[in-house]
Amino acid sequence: MLKRIEVFNENSFDEKKVSNLLVHDSPYMKVINFNFKAGQELPVHSHDIEGQLSIAVLEGSGEFLGKDGSTLPAETGDVLISDISEPHGVRAKTDMRVLVTIAPPI
Amino acid sequence: MLKRIEVFNENSFDEKKVSNLLVHDSPYMKVINFNFKAGQELPVHSHDIEGQLSIAVLEGSGEFLGKDGSTLPAETGDVLISDISEPHGVRAKTDMRVLVTIAPPI
Repeated sequence: MLKRIEVFNENSFDEKKVSNLLVHDSPYMKVINFNFKAGQELPVHSHDIEGQLSIAVLEGSGEFLGKDGSTLPAETGDVLISDISEPHGVRAKTDMRVLVTIAPPI
Repeated sequence: MLKRIEVFNENSFDEKKVSNLLVHDSPYMKVINFNFKAGQELPVHSHDIEGQLSIAVLEGSGEFLGKDGSTLPAETGDVLISDISEPHGVRAKTDMRVLVTIAPPI
């Protein structure tokens, strides 16, 4: 069975907090869409477990955050790959939509 | 170690065939970017193995393809989830960029 999720229509933006939509959760992967208003962020964090995640920027721009205050540009179409155990985060410069995929799911 | 891939800059379009870029391959997931010129397609196919895949439309529009000629709209920001064993494909109406994530990798 194919499942289609219209991420741009099914999740909105919230002035008060990062708005998230669970796109998919299965034994194989977890997929979450986060929408950021300009200036909002997902603070740097990590989990001491096996696995990796990707963060794809669907719209807008900002920065990927890493350990010790490091940053990388996050433009539309950019993909960040990180171990789940590696510190990672996102900060939005403009309104920004990202898609996070975690495998195996946590 | 964080790895950033600039998908919009690192892969181009090819009038003769779908252009693909291996974004990431690990024991946890395989991530591939496909760029389609309008009219190009990834024909319906499936593999008889465990696992799932997501297809996220980064740019442009077209159709997700399923078994028996079925289609679903594929607009920018849409995500398709499919078992790897389920027939799936993509056809582009405009120039189109998609990101495919396969877990576990095949």
